[in-house]
Amino acid sequence: MEEHRHVTIYDIAERLNLATSTISRALKDHPSISDKTIKKVKKTAEEMGFVPNTLAAGLRGNKSKTIGVLIPTITQPFLSSLISGIEVAARKSNYSVIIMQSHDSYADEVNMAKSLYSSRVSGVICSLAMETKDTSHFEQFLNNNIPLVFVDRVPKGFNAFRVVIDNYTAGYKATKHLIDQGCKRIAHMTAGAEFGNLYNERKRGYMDALAEHNIPLKEELIIHLKAMTYDAGVKACNKLFGLKMPPDGLFAPGDLLAVSAVQTAKKKGIKVPHDFAVIGFNNDPISEIIEPNISTITHPAEKMGKAAANIVIDNIESLKEEEEVKEITFLNTEVLIRESSKKI
Amino acid sequence: MEEHRHVTIYDIAERLNLATSTISRALKDHPSISDKTIKKVKKTAEEMGFVPNTLAAGLRGNKSKTIGVLIPTITQPFLSSLISGIEVAARKSNYSVIIMQSHDSYADEVNMAKSLYSSRVSGVICSLAMETKDTSHFEQFLNNNIPLVFVDRVPKGFNAFRVVIDNYTAGYKATKHLIDQGCKRIAHMTAGAEFGNLYNERKRGYMDALAEHNIPLKEELIIHLKAMTYDAGVKACNKLFGLKMPPDGLFAPGDLLAVSAVQTAKKKGIKVPHDFAVIGFNNDPISEIIEPNISTITHPAEKMGKAAANIVIDNIESLKEEEEVKEITFLNTEVLIRESSKKI
Repeated sequence: MEEHRHVTIYDIAERLNLATSTISRALKDHPSISDKTIKKVKKTAEEMGFVPNTLAAGLRGNKSKTIGVLIPTITQPFLSSLISGIEVAARKSNYSVIIMQSHDSYADEVNMAKSLYSSRVSGVICSLAMETKDTSHFEQFLNNNIPLVFVDRVPKGFNAFRVVIDNYTAGYKATKHLIDQGCKRIAHMTAGAEFGNLYNERKRGYMDALAEHNIPLKEELIIHLKAMTYDAGVKACNKLFGLKMPPDGLFAPGDLLAVSAVQTAKKKGIKVPHDFAVIGFNNDPISEIIEPNISTITHPAEKMGKAAANIVIDNIESLKEEEEVKEITFLNTEVLIRESSKKI
Repeated sequence: MEEHRHVTIYDIAERLNLATSTISRALKDHPSISDKTIKKVKKTAEEMGFVPNTLAAGLRGNKSKTIGVLIPTITQPFLSSLISGIEVAARKSNYSVIIMQSHDSYADEVNMAKSLYSSRVSGVICSLAMETKDTSHFEQFLNNNIPLVFVDRVPKGFNAFRVVIDNYTAGYKATKHLIDQGCKRIAHMTAGAEFGNLYNERKRGYMDALAEHNIPLKEELIIHLKAMTYDAGVKACNKLFGLKMPPDGLFAPGDLLAVSAVQTAKKKGIKVPHDFAVIGFNNDPISEIIEPNISTITHPAEKMGKAAANIVIDNIESLKEEEEVKEITFLNTEVLIRESSKKI
């Protein structure tokens, strides 16, 4: 491939017989340069086909105007909405977005963090891999004042920005909705503590809602899953329906699990919602399309993406010496009542 | 924010009293440098905490080791699978992936192409916006020998790589499947020619399958859509079911449209597949979950992403003076027969 020579500020400086620093400042509307010179420089730059090299600009300022996004996978609806929000907000401020998928592998996450660091990203947004317990691979960003925001799956006790929803309250509201519909034996699916605290928080909300309504907690109704997949949901439901006293309701911490529960129940002739009321989580597109429609908890994924990108950008551009760690909690998760849980 | 000073090859050169070019070559295992020197340089680099600056390396060689991906939206399942494939293949060759969403706007696509060009990406992968008719904004890549690959929604008569499926054959196979099931009045949804030729190709396959089986083409059974949305599908089906002679089958060029058709039929008491057999396109996750399951055409989105990324990388790294334009057509689209069309 032939190397193409780009027009540089040196070429413009030579043409106009001005210093390169003058050209550079004029192109940035620097107040020390006269309007007349700014106009002349910009006109000449355009005539010569000059394209500002943002990569070179990034390098000189040790900034690349890129945000690195490190997430488990792009194809999960919640995460693709999150990325979409990040991209839209970044674009508005002329930042580019680099995407990396850990596929829930700790080793990949460590390598990708290293790779983002060496490519001098301006900031990083991360949702942790399922496998990740140790988060020391993120210290390289903090040590070098590179803004770091965790979203959704966030680490405990790590000194970085966090953008989350109130998982406890959402879990409480989902469970209370089923109690309000008359359910007495409410099942729940959850994931172990090693997967971050989000599922634990939802479970805590579930348990407190039961306790406040004097419904005894039955360990047999809580199913621990290793992965939040459709097949894992089917397997869990078959176990629940095989109990001597099967559940009359389910709070699933994801819509795909809720869909698997509704379809497993239907195949067994169990009427949804009459005999088995179901509520999911996230308001994924599928929850609205499946029949019966799935009641769910709304999740502001796109808004969270925008918020995360804006925190990164504000912290790059404000150039603050010290920044207090902040947590942004989106409180507007709502119970969206649809057919799968509406008994009354 | 305090500027952090990174260790550079100049620092290593000073410490070892060697030329910077020697350090640079040694770090890359250049054959002109002795094994002893390579070992010494690498050891010192590690001790000093040197991190290779891939961004700076990119700049010097006029390459950033990044692939720009310009697609309509991240959240559509076909496109998130495509991006996932691009990201996996890019990562294997140590390339980063920058994502930009045109949201089907021509103006945004033009601006984003400009932005990718100014950030000196190594190559570009694009699926065109619905609005795009003129593709001259991609000439800046060709003129500067930056590899450019179009995927799925590709322009006609433009001198760039293309990765596509055989949409004509897929459309033919989908329609023939419905004919084999005994359908006589097969409807089709399509989009205008301005949206690229992919929907036209599927329609051409549909028309030829009908003709070869002596089934007359009825214009009233072909619905032109402006957007491939669920609501547009419902509206089109209501129109079709209102005909004097309603259809007994539908080839929808997308699974969401097929789902909307099945659900609209069910609401009207039309039996699927007995009275109305439906086949979709893409094998989106929803097609397998909805009841009845949707017959569909498999679409190798992830493989296409990997192929596109590898074309970009091979063409950057081979540094060929001239490269013939190639089209890679994935031929392995298959009819996946499920409940929504299985009459016999």
